[in-house]
Amino acid sequence: MPRTVGVDIGGTKVLGVALDCDAPEHGPLAEARRPTPRGAEALVATVAAVVGDVLEQVAPSGVAALGVGLPGLVDHDGVLRFGPNLPGIVDLDLEQALAINLDLPVVVDNDANCAAWAEHRLGAAAGRDHAVLVTLGTGIGAGLITDGRPFTGAHGMAGEPGHMIVDPGGPRCPCGRRGCWERYASGSGLGFLAREAALAGRADQVVALAGGDAEMVRGEHVTTAARRGDAEALAVMDSVGGWVAVGLATLVNSLDPEVVVLGGGLVTEVDLFLTPTRMAFGELVLASAHRPEVPIVAATTGERAGALGAALLAAERH
Amino acid sequence: MPRTVGVDIGGTKVLGVALDCDAPEHGPLAEARRPTPRGAEALVATVAAVVGDVLEQVAPSGVAALGVGLPGLVDHDGVLRFGPNLPGIVDLDLEQALAINLDLPVVVDNDANCAAWAEHRLGAAAGRDHAVLVTLGTGIGAGLITDGRPFTGAHGMAGEPGHMIVDPGGPRCPCGRRGCWERYASGSGLGFLAREAALAGRADQVVALAGGDAEMVRGEHVTTAARRGDAEALAVMDSVGGWVAVGLATLVNSLDPEVVVLGGGLVTEVDLFLTPTRMAFGELVLASAHRPEVPIVAATTGERAGALGAALLAAERH
Repeated sequence: MPRTVGVDIGGTKVLGVALDCDAPEHGPLAEARRPTPRGAEALVATVAAVVGDVLEQVAPSGVAALGVGLPGLVDHDGVLRFGPNLPGIVDLDLEQALAINLDLPVVVDNDANCAAWAEHRLGAAAGRDHAVLVTLGTGIGAGLITDGRPFTGAHGMAGEPGHMIVDPGGPRCPCGRRGCWERYASGSGLGFLAREAALAGRADQVVALAGGDAEMVRGEHVTTAARRGDAEALAVMDSVGGWVAVGLATLVNSLDPEVVVLGGGLVTEVDLFLTPTRMAFGELVLASAHRPEVPIVAATTGERAGALGAALLAAERH
Repeated sequence: MPRTVGVDIGGTKVLGVALDCDAPEHGPLAEARRPTPRGAEALVATVAAVVGDVLEQVAPSGVAALGVGLPGLVDHDGVLRFGPNLPGIVDLDLEQALAINLDLPVVVDNDANCAAWAEHRLGAAAGRDHAVLVTLGTGIGAGLITDGRPFTGAHGMAGEPGHMIVDPGGPRCPCGRRGCWERYASGSGLGFLAREAALAGRADQVVALAGGDAEMVRGEHVTTAARRGDAEALAVMDSVGGWVAVGLATLVNSLDPEVVVLGGGLVTEVDLFLTPTRMAFGELVLASAHRPEVPIVAATTGERAGALGAALLAAERH
């Protein structure tokens, strides 16, 4: 397989890598990053610039294709249909726009799908033909591997569990619904559950870390207090772990994977919630005593997961 | 393709058909049914007897294989791992037991997987490569079609959405969890929601049909009153429809099918809840304005769906 470039468009930065797809385990040949701009035209220009930054560091003539991952619903033609974290961008045919700009074959896919492919090829889902990657970040995304291939559904939009309803009487989500999974089981969810505990007087040390104002409590205050052994902060982490398990059990009941891999920004704190997640998952998944165990593990490809996966997908498809 | 026999093991009856798999649209060549017995040995004997009843009506020498569908988790080796509606039966290698008894190649699968295959070949999912069949009966099952094939997951256990948690503070489920989808969106769920309305004084005509005792309200009292135009009964059906939509949206967000097909016993009342289901689904599915519409339709293969699908799966696999 050839050298490719992979780019991951995040809410704050655009990260690019060049990869030798014959030896991806050696890591990126080159890397570049730029801030994510607002608006479609600026985004296309920034991706092109990041690709340029990467190509400057390697022999451009050897690069066969570009893969791009981005947060949103991407259809099978590489059109971004819906991306709430990329304000001002709707129905953007990014695949075509980049192909014209860059004179390279381009593959565009959802960022979690890219990260799942990276974990399948290089990470915690290596050797597993059926895997679910769940990214716990500001929101929740997912990438599915079935029969050893990326599974993207009829229209490219599979693997969007963040807005499954897990509590119809729960808090309002920015999406307009109530009680979406990502209100509880994401980075934002951690902050929400912590403020709920703080306002109920069940998180005194956490509130102290937030300057004494319960309304100002953020996720990092909880994890800091939890790492100091504060019981109330640890209880909030238990609660986050339980909510993570609620959605994972639904996904496993539906998809029956061999492994669940947790990625995204919250995974840096995974040691604080993985044990309660696993315990609750064992109670919540159907017939756990009568089915093979489904391990829940942390992703290993780190913050480059999306870019690496995009590079590997580009090599697969070109 | 050859002639095959398909058998559907239900909670109350075992239904068998013989099918010409070259012309399945003409319907069964023969049919037989017997009551479902208790216990593994009796079940194997009853399935064998139903197959015998069917073979008496057709030329047995032309029958190439037997397919069997049953309610429970069936692994890829045809072993029933977990079947809460078949009391006294655990870890039954039905495929082997029947193959020894009948001298025929045997395929055993989950009943909803069989029904989904029947709908894909002969029913409301014909021509759709990506489909989700949800059976709304006493509980909820599902069968998945992806890329034009049955999708059963890593271990044969995919498509079990009935015990996804949709309301953690909800009623206790016989499975031990709280707020499982099938507590609300099944035949039992209809009864539960009706009794809840009755006990709150919001279902007077329904209670009257139940002999004046709110605790005795069953699903059929609600549907009878709803068909007479009773507003309170129709409100209960709206509520059922809304809960059906909650789980369907989760499945569609995860799997991105082209169509959702509703089957199972409750589908005879589908005209009473399909409109509210569709309305709520439009609100609950992610980004409905930015994705192709996913039609929600009723199954068309009726009570023989499982047996027909089992016969067709047997022909596929032998």
